[in-house]
Amino acid sequence: MSHNSFGHLFRVTTFGESHGPAIGCVVDGCPPGLELSEADIQPFLDQRRPGQSRHTTQRQEADQVRILSGVFEGLTTGTPIGLMIENTDQRSKDYSEIKDKFRPGHADFTYIEKYGIRDYRGGGRSSARETAMRVAAGAVARKVLGAGIEIRGALVRMGKKVINADNWDWDEVSRNPFFCPDAAAASEFESYLDGIRKAGSSVGGVVEVQATGVPAGWGAPIYGKLDGDLAAAMMSINAVKGVEIGAGMAAAELTGEENADDMRMAGNRPTFLSNNAGGILGGISSGQEVIVRFAVKPTSSILTPRQTVDREGNETEIFTKGRHDPCVGIRAVPVGEAMMACVLADHLLRHRAQCGS
Amino acid sequence: MSHNSFGHLFRVTTFGESHGPAIGCVVDGCPPGLELSEADIQPFLDQRRPGQSRHTTQRQEADQVRILSGVFEGLTTGTPIGLMIENTDQRSKDYSEIKDKFRPGHADFTYIEKYGIRDYRGGGRSSARETAMRVAAGAVARKVLGAGIEIRGALVRMGKKVINADNWDWDEVSRNPFFCPDAAAASEFESYLDGIRKAGSSVGGVVEVQATGVPAGWGAPIYGKLDGDLAAAMMSINAVKGVEIGAGMAAAELTGEENADDMRMAGNRPTFLSNNAGGILGGISSGQEVIVRFAVKPTSSILTPRQTVDREGNETEIFTKGRHDPCVGIRAVPVGEAMMACVLADHLLRHRAQCGS
Amino acid sequence: MSHNSFGHLFRVTTFGESHGPAIGCVVDGCPPGLELSEADIQPFLDQRRPGQSRHTTQRQEADQVRILSGVFEGLTTGTPIGLMIENTDQRSKDYSEIKDKFRPGHADFTYIEKYGIRDYRGGGRSSARETAMRVAAGAVARKVLGAGIEIRGALVRMGKKVINADNWDWDEVSRNPFFCPDAAAASEFESYLDGIRKAGSSVGGVVEVQATGVPAGWGAPIYGKLDGDLAAAMMSINAVKGVEIGAGMAAAELTGEENADDMRMAGNRPTFLSNNAGGILGGISSGQEVIVRFAVKPTSSILTPRQTVDREGNETEIFTKGRHDPCVGIRAVPVGEAMMACVLADHLLRHRAQCGS
Amino acid sequence: MSHNSFGHLFRVTTFGESHGPAIGCVVDGCPPGLELSEADIQPFLDQRRPGQSRHTTQRQEADQVRILSGVFEGLTTGTPIGLMIENTDQRSKDYSEIKDKFRPGHADFTYIEKYGIRDYRGGGRSSARETAMRVAAGAVARKVLGAGIEIRGALVRMGKKVINADNWDWDEVSRNPFFCPDAAAASEFESYLDGIRKAGSSVGGVVEVQATGVPAGWGAPIYGKLDGDLAAAMMSINAVKGVEIGAGMAAAELTGEENADDMRMAGNRPTFLSNNAGGILGGISSGQEVIVRFAVKPTSSILTPRQTVDREGNETEIFTKGRHDPCVGIRAVPVGEAMMACVLADHLLRHRAQCGS
Repeated sequence: MSHNSFGHLFRVTTFGESHGPAIGCVVDGCPPGLELSEADIQPFLDQRRPGQSRHTTQRQEADQVRILSGVFEGLTTGTPIGLMIENTDQRSKDYSEIKDKFRPGHADFTYIEKYGIRDYRGGGRSSARETAMRVAAGAVARKVLGAGIEIRGALVRMGKKVINADNWDWDEVSRNPFFCPDAAAASEFESYLDGIRKAGSSVGGVVEVQATGVPAGWGAPIYGKLDGDLAAAMMSINAVKGVEIGAGMAAAELTGEENADDMRMAGNRPTFLSNNAGGILGGISSGQEVIVRFAVKPTSSILTPRQTVDREGNETEIFTKGRHDPCVGIRAVPVGEAMMACVLADHLLRHRAQCGS
Repeated sequence: MSHNSFGHLFRVTTFGESHGPAIGCVVDGCPPGLELSEADIQPFLDQRRPGQSRHTTQRQEADQVRILSGVFEGLTTGTPIGLMIENTDQRSKDYSEIKDKFRPGHADFTYIEKYGIRDYRGGGRSSARETAMRVAAGAVARKVLGAGIEIRGALVRMGKKVINADNWDWDEVSRNPFFCPDAAAASEFESYLDGIRKAGSSVGGVVEVQATGVPAGWGAPIYGKLDGDLAAAMMSINAVKGVEIGAGMAAAELTGEENADDMRMAGNRPTFLSNNAGGILGGISSGQEVIVRFAVKPTSSILTPRQTVDREGNETEIFTKGRHDPCVGIRAVPVGEAMMACVLADHLLRHRAQCGS
Repeated sequence: MSHNSFGHLFRVTTFGESHGPAIGCVVDGCPPGLELSEADIQPFLDQRRPGQSRHTTQRQEADQVRILSGVFEGLTTGTPIGLMIENTDQRSKDYSEIKDKFRPGHADFTYIEKYGIRDYRGGGRSSARETAMRVAAGAVARKVLGAGIEIRGALVRMGKKVINADNWDWDEVSRNPFFCPDAAAASEFESYLDGIRKAGSSVGGVVEVQATGVPAGWGAPIYGKLDGDLAAAMMSINAVKGVEIGAGMAAAELTGEENADDMRMAGNRPTFLSNNAGGILGGISSGQEVIVRFAVKPTSSILTPRQTVDREGNETEIFTKGRHDPCVGIRAVPVGEAMMACVLADHLLRHRAQCGS
Repeated sequence: MSHNSFGHLFRVTTFGESHGPAIGCVVDGCPPGLELSEADIQPFLDQRRPGQSRHTTQRQEADQVRILSGVFEGLTTGTPIGLMIENTDQRSKDYSEIKDKFRPGHADFTYIEKYGIRDYRGGGRSSARETAMRVAAGAVARKVLGAGIEIRGALVRMGKKVINADNWDWDEVSRNPFFCPDAAAASEFESYLDGIRKAGSSVGGVVEVQATGVPAGWGAPIYGKLDGDLAAAMMSINAVKGVEIGAGMAAAELTGEENADDMRMAGNRPTFLSNNAGGILGGISSGQEVIVRFAVKPTSSILTPRQTVDREGNETEIFTKGRHDPCVGIRAVPVGEAMMACVLADHLLRHRAQCGS
């Protein structure tokens, strides 16, 4: 058991705080003989990197990843892959405001209740900075999965604004700063978020991640279900409050006839006529697209003062100046992709272990 | 790692198929010295037991649990608790229809793809019969948690029908066959489900589970988050397609101001003025009610024929006669409670290990 | 984590006490499609069964194993295999002597110190009765390993008496009641143990277990070493106090020249000219025979009164009447074989997961 | 599951190769609020550090440890502790000799068989360099255990030379370069090892590690036994071939009367009149000294040419020039202490989890 490890056979252990010298991770269980270099990882980190548009935090981090072990002459060796990113923008700052006051919506209060101590600089361990290592590990996981499996994420809701699924265009995702697959919605998102940001406010969002090319048979009953692991993976991302597979919460409103994904043959392979299941039946992949969505709550750091208390039990107010994402859902897109990749890589290995291929 | 175990320090391993001789589980890690007998477990099993009203499957199972180990002179000894329920109503039946055809929405196809073999009798391992052992383990978990923590569940949506939260009355839950906390809605559910059942159809539902009395400080960053574990727990229940904590998916629509749970003092303890967080901040309990909801899809077994294929690749049709729940969401209520209890018992022990109390 | 589970991918969880209604285990992770029935397991249980000669305890247990799940139409299905043995000879007995007194060498004192409670009937959970389930699980593990891997154990020392390795004859093992591979030594063991038994005494022993046919490449650095797992496996058997791989403790006395296992070619495969390594280099199998030895202490239950104390802190004496093995090392032979089988099956799956074959 | 992690609640994950840029580890599960700085760790690393006498390898490594996370204002925070040591003496060297030839006794052959690739520089991952991180983690574990538990190791055998236990003096251990507790034996070891070294040979050794102050009650049946975990811990150290608890392998030669550790009262606490059990009964600590011994084989790198084969299947010879320990058993002493500390820290937390103190 480990509170800071994820996965079983493709296993990622992360460490590091927002304002410590470095963050890092160990990727254990990676198969040998895969081509891997920093250049395979960096592009994914760059997608998540802050400070790339006015719509995300202005913290400047190069997020340059360094491989410390597990790769020899350009190939993975089967030994643990150590990855590290040095923190460079640990802006010297006056922490007196947040040192003793609990910021509502943040983990300040609960860390103190649990540990009796917390690194209050930039959120410490509870900072979303940790997700950089998830993205790095996710890049390794993609190598394990190979080119046949494609994992893509998109922001499908920003506050009250939702995309029109009929407009879905994966190419659009890289053309706007929101990972939005609907050009019209992206334009709406932009003006909407400008208003939110200028008001010192924030807003939630919904991310959808899809994986194509996943063969039927991955996952396992009962507590090793693919959807169970995806739920844990996504819910473990900072600020996530809900996770859905396929039809998701809406499945509750359907009848059996509406929900059934009928089967036909497509050549010599069974196929499905719809995908309410999100590609998973009985916890095992069906060969359809694996589809997961998760809701990210609005950033708790806003300029409007909120009522709170301090460590000594005094009632007080707090508002959070500084560099924040008005919609953390945006940067959660590459993180969600990475978690999907890690879960699938783990299940590839788990399936191969028991069933031999 | 185990595909059939749940939890880390309070660890449950289940076995058994729908139509095998017995189902069972091993509860490992239970603290010593707790009073425990079959009489502590049976009432929870009776809540989940089929055949108690016309609204659930007519399979008749006594679900009599037997403690095989780990209890001596009425007290837990700290050694593993073996629990077993013999299957009594394995109705002799003609399985020729489902032996070779894949029932849409069931795990038939994916089990064959994974294992190349499946026990097709009543769904085998993928049957919700396995959840009886979760309920049994949950009863043990409640002993670990003690009387100060109360865990209660309710059905808050049945298909298109939702409860009115203003009418919420926990006492009502035991007065209707739907675990519905709203008497008016329960009445609606009844006629609605009669129609569904008579049509040979089925419908989904949403279950909400609440835990009161959970102290602040349980859970752990980063991959041991209380909400991450709850998400995995609930998503691992048969037919669940979505999990929410607190505001859940709706958190995506909120602004930071709307979502913030402001803090004040209540006597000498901090308190919160709302609970969008569902009692969990940064993966750690805040001392508020822990609130989780999950969506259960409609039973896939319906009388309307569906298009499918068989193992030989022939296109065909199937419909499922026999004993089925028109709304499996109902019997998922005690299962959801049990999973909440197991997650909390595990985190009680995990917290005590690291933080000493 | 689980205190009562062993292995990772081939994972065994046991439960049950010496004088409870039953003992059992769950074998999780077994590959699908293997032929398995009670008849595959029973012969190994019969080897370990008490009461078969005057040299072992006279407790009479049929040790009839029952498969409760995970097998369908004679084949494993990939779902957990539940196994159970009912305890039949729970001789009604006066436990007043051992209820409150701590038997030296037994776990009586430490169980009370740990748990504050203990099932004193026949040793409860600390009884070697639990090893029956190891043997049952080992029989399943052998199925996973297939016919190409042979696992055999032998008693190579009984107290002061040792075998002559030059006389080693595997066929001899089944011809005497000691699993002794040396006919001359077996004869010595017999008269020696008769003397020990008649004196109400007991004596230790050394068991050697060998596995042939293990391919090179199983095991893993650093904490998943094959020898590390074998050491844990054997040391977890009741009464074991030492474990050796290959040259074992004697390796400390060798020079580098003496210890080196030189390599040559045998046809187109590398081979070794000696096997001080016991078939394991760097934690990974070399393709040679895997050889492990372990020391079993003498049974602590003897007729000579020993000084002890009771739960109230009074100094007193105790001696243990009843049915005991004068040399528990004998019945440890099939247990050691079973643990070797379980470790190897686990590593077969772990290797296949990471390295693909 | 992780091949490169050790422990459950006090969990150490290591990474790094002998000649990569750095080695490191993550210590997860450490309780919060413990004083910790590099100065607490460095002295233990210095004990293990190479190049301190003519009796160990002349590789020069400062082994300066750096804490990357998990400590704030001098106290542990409960979040993962990242530790790193940069490799500084990666001597540029001609590896053509060992690149394709398998060194007998090393993991060269088995790594290639397993992974199809190996980092041959200085042994790569199979180098004992990894043990530096064990020592670092062990220093953290000592903090968890507190001042009441003392862990000390000693070299009690070097090849044919053994200490006289009657001369045991812990103070002597730091006065000679062998961690030898017997001044007379240390003198013998010196001339003996000079001869070995000058001959280009090597020799094995036996290390004993003792822990005092361990309370009764740590450890757990059946597969979480304290001795089982110690056996795995010690066997996982490079070059170890045997592990003993208490009387160890010699227990096989004893009768029940000789082996029994009788009990008496010492004031109001039970005590034992001998310690053949090595402080562990039924897998649980008895309150006596916990005593483990392990055998380290002679260094496989010697100057005498050995017969071997190369990757292409040619028969050839190899001898290993360069910097090697003539008796790796010496530097295994601080490593053995560290593993004892890690096992005990893990069991402290595990015991507290289940039993509450």
